[in-house]
Amino acid sequence: MLDLFFEAGNLKRLPRTGWLLRGVSNPESIADHSYRAVLITLFLADSLRERGVDIDVERALKIAILHDLAEARITDIPLTAQYYLDKKRAETRAALEIFIKAGPKARDYFELFREYEEGLSLEGRLVKFADKLEMLIQALEYEEAGFRNLDEFWSTLDDLRKSEFYEHFQDLVEGLAALRKQKC
Amino acid sequence: MLDLFFEAGNLKRLPRTGWLLRGVSNPESIADHSYRAVLITLFLADSLRERGVDIDVERALKIAILHDLAEARITDIPLTAQYYLDKKRAETRAALEIFIKAGPKARDYFELFREYEEGLSLEGRLVKFADKLEMLIQALEYEEAGFRNLDEFWSTLDDLRKSEFYEHFQDLVEGLAALRKQKC
Amino acid sequence: MLDLFFEAGNLKRLPRTGWLLRGVSNPESIADHSYRAVLITLFLADSLRERGVDIDVERALKIAILHDLAEARITDIPLTAQYYLDKKRAETRAALEIFIKAGPKARDYFELFREYEEGLSLEGRLVKFADKLEMLIQALEYEEAGFRNLDEFWSTLDDLRKSEFYEHFQDLVEGLAALRKQKC
Amino acid sequence: MLDLFFEAGNLKRLPRTGWLLRGVSNPESIADHSYRAVLITLFLADSLRERGVDIDVERALKIAILHDLAEARITDIPLTAQYYLDKKRAETRAALEIFIKAGPKARDYFELFREYEEGLSLEGRLVKFADKLEMLIQALEYEEAGFRNLDEFWSTLDDLRKSEFYEHFQDLVEGLAALRKQKC
Amino acid sequence: MLDLFFEAGNLKRLPRTGWLLRGVSNPESIADHSYRAVLITLFLADSLRERGVDIDVERALKIAILHDLAEARITDIPLTAQYYLDKKRAETRAALEIFIKAGPKARDYFELFREYEEGLSLEGRLVKFADKLEMLIQALEYEEAGFRNLDEFWSTLDDLRKSEFYEHFQDLVEGLAALRKQKC
Amino acid sequence: MLDLFFEAGNLKRLPRTGWLLRGVSNPESIADHSYRAVLITLFLADSLRERGVDIDVERALKIAILHDLAEARITDIPLTAQYYLDKKRAETRAALEIFIKAGPKARDYFELFREYEEGLSLEGRLVKFADKLEMLIQALEYEEAGFRNLDEFWSTLDDLRKSEFYEHFQDLVEGLAALRKQKC
Repeated sequence: MLDLFFEAGNLKRLPRTGWLLRGVSNPESIADHSYRAVLITLFLADSLRERGVDIDVERALKIAILHDLAEARITDIPLTAQYYLDKKRAETRAALEIFIKAGPKARDYFELFREYEEGLSLEGRLVKFADKLEMLIQALEYEEAGFRNLDEFWSTLDDLRKSEFYEHFQDLVEGLAALRKQKC
Repeated sequence: MLDLFFEAGNLKRLPRTGWLLRGVSNPESIADHSYRAVLITLFLADSLRERGVDIDVERALKIAILHDLAEARITDIPLTAQYYLDKKRAETRAALEIFIKAGPKARDYFELFREYEEGLSLEGRLVKFADKLEMLIQALEYEEAGFRNLDEFWSTLDDLRKSEFYEHFQDLVEGLAALRKQKC
Repeated sequence: MLDLFFEAGNLKRLPRTGWLLRGVSNPESIADHSYRAVLITLFLADSLRERGVDIDVERALKIAILHDLAEARITDIPLTAQYYLDKKRAETRAALEIFIKAGPKARDYFELFREYEEGLSLEGRLVKFADKLEMLIQALEYEEAGFRNLDEFWSTLDDLRKSEFYEHFQDLVEGLAALRKQKC
Repeated sequence: MLDLFFEAGNLKRLPRTGWLLRGVSNPESIADHSYRAVLITLFLADSLRERGVDIDVERALKIAILHDLAEARITDIPLTAQYYLDKKRAETRAALEIFIKAGPKARDYFELFREYEEGLSLEGRLVKFADKLEMLIQALEYEEAGFRNLDEFWSTLDDLRKSEFYEHFQDLVEGLAALRKQKC
Repeated sequence: MLDLFFEAGNLKRLPRTGWLLRGVSNPESIADHSYRAVLITLFLADSLRERGVDIDVERALKIAILHDLAEARITDIPLTAQYYLDKKRAETRAALEIFIKAGPKARDYFELFREYEEGLSLEGRLVKFADKLEMLIQALEYEEAGFRNLDEFWSTLDDLRKSEFYEHFQDLVEGLAALRKQKC
Repeated sequence: MLDLFFEAGNLKRLPRTGWLLRGVSNPESIADHSYRAVLITLFLADSLRERGVDIDVERALKIAILHDLAEARITDIPLTAQYYLDKKRAETRAALEIFIKAGPKARDYFELFREYEEGLSLEGRLVKFADKLEMLIQALEYEEAGFRNLDEFWSTLDDLRKSEFYEHFQDLVEGLAALRKQKC
């Protein structure tokens, strides 16, 4: 297990390449992103439960924590590369091998990973929603700081609007959209 | 809630000052540290449950996710300052006000924070164990990379050895100690 | 004394957190700021003396050099934290203990620090004026470089305008205000 | 062609991930590496020609200049990922599409790329030799600066010793090996 | 020769000071710039040859590779300093001594350097054209990323328009000018 | 005068090239160095006065504050370049022109600069002593942090030992030498 913890350290050292390629100097690490995605998942999952949605919060949190772990081996392959590489397949295979280090529950962890990757469960899809929301919040923070060149990220707003969670989190999504309009 | 997510972004921008003051250039962010502390908590909590320990994994994860959130306002006050400032009191008050942004469950979140801060629950103490373990793993990573001047951090090893969790995670703790002896 | 010189090295390693929190990547260090605050003090103090103001230039320079030294222990606590922490009291106590390392003149140095902190002397207040002017010049430099999100810093302009030194340095203050209007 | 020049700018922004993963903070960019690999190629190729080897120096230089260009899309995929991804295939396909931007000579440039990738020509193999030599020189520079954790890179020394160019550049290779022994 | 390769490593470590002084944080290295200048030279030289211009491509590439090598000793002296220092003379003398490390062909390399420095040959002048084009492309990339304060660099556009190569590369130059108008 | 303050901002942006060339990533700025050199001057000058040495402390402080200001135009030209460039002459001429911005006292400031540059006064020579001491303290800090490759800086220790101030500050100099022996 110690070995797995060391390997996760790569996520601190590796930059999120989407920002890097658009000229953000010293962008956030993958771990930076993962942390806030986890945090957002916590508040969204609790909020859904309060509203009567039948959601397994522990499961959602675990998915959020593990969803980018394979990038400790694969790195944050940017869109420009995904046309030439099967990123999803690579991450899936790497995830499987990383989780083996975790001992007897490896299969369970891998199952959580697949729920995210394939959108197989409500919890997996919520993490995907949180993941995209996190990215847009970061995009706005960079834009507020003065960075430009991030327009194309905002097409993700449509994904959020079409999501099954939009009815619950319309305020969040439209609040973010309004902030962007106002500030940029 | 959106406001809370933006505030959490500070954890990405703020460095861990302990490393900074000892000359580590571009050290990890608070969010970097928090992420791996959360990850470690996940594996340790699941492992305890497997061993028959009665632990609330969801609760442990939430504590880990929230335990450093107050630093988004207070920053990572280093030891050199703690003699002059009541860091704990400041973080507690800031945590309370941050959680108010989260709506009706603010009280619950604050309770989780206090479980960590005061060691009131098994889950709170496990996160403290994970938090220290994470710090030592990072210390070793910096030492392996060539940084020196980090000896004093290793006194934390004794805290881990005296912890109630040591019986369960002796292999982890001594594995780390052995790695350090071998590599540094 | 050597020990004091080493401790002052922290000011090189610690970032100015005000910029950091607003998204300036790799902002200036505390020492960077202190240096220009000292330089500005030199020219302002000399200029006041030329205009017949009875000012002790050596005293003013010493105050400027020492005014941020306590941050070597306390770090640059940002506004978000000052609501929860007694920064002034912490810096005052830390300053006292740092100056003790300087030997028999410790009391004198502490007195200089308090003149700044409490605005007890013309020289102490001049350094406060220089300190704020330095911050605004830096804000404009970051804005010229493309960083945004720094509007709130400019409320400090009013402090400069209400200062007793405004009559002498109106040209400087309004020159800066005009530059900002023109460029941003 | 302008578009191609902009795309090549990615090589300045992207770090060499091998160093990054071993804890070198702010490592060189891909372009940094490429530049010195090109420079080394120049001197080695000229030297070979002087010694009577029948080598096309222009061809060698072009191969060196173009050999990492595909990484502008693919990024510097580290060894940890290559087990899961077909890096070579991805780079080959990306290279082909990038060169199309260069107009009628696209085929020729792609041919040069393949000479490197597949070791089809003396010139292609020389660039591979220069590429590895450059990496080891950089490794030694990082080690001299204090970074550790780079031992495994030095197995590449054997590749250089087994190369067809070793007879010509034994002094270089063994000079480097001796420097390392002496300094580290 | 090994010694020369080590010395060239300085070009990776040294920033381009023009950007630094205008507030670009973590600007490109000299090697970053040199790499793309070499790449541009390759495509421009090949293109000229295709159009029937009598140009020695190998010679042009060598000049591009070597044209900034003296900065490994002299650093990238900015315009603010050139009024007080004879940069050209210093670089010329440093180049001569660096090339001596390259052995018997030192004189030839120095000749290439002078062709660039003095514009003595078509190839030397082409590298100057490529060098300026590279700088403007980088300026636009920084501007697209959000950096400001780079207006004065664009006077170089006139140099490109007055160049003997403008008739061949009007599309490139005006394409760049149009992009800037559109984006900034 | 505002213009002079802006120009001094360059000292924050420019790295100390001596560290940079030896592989220290993100080294201190010129302003970082200047700040501590000023601070050291303060304590040394006061200490000398206490011991009955006839020294003008205000004068010493002003010299320390101004002694590197010319580098705002000239940058920190490293030793590798000084063989090819007349750094001293360049800095002297730049200092003169910078001080003209300070108004009627320009001549006085220039005189202070020359006292340092030429060692014309006790105060000028004290700043040179403080400047070297600062550099060695920084060298030790980098070495403690893990950076290597800084041996040659320590020849400066001899300069300190031969200085007229050694009799007063033997404890400081030998204390530093002892620390280095112990730690490195």
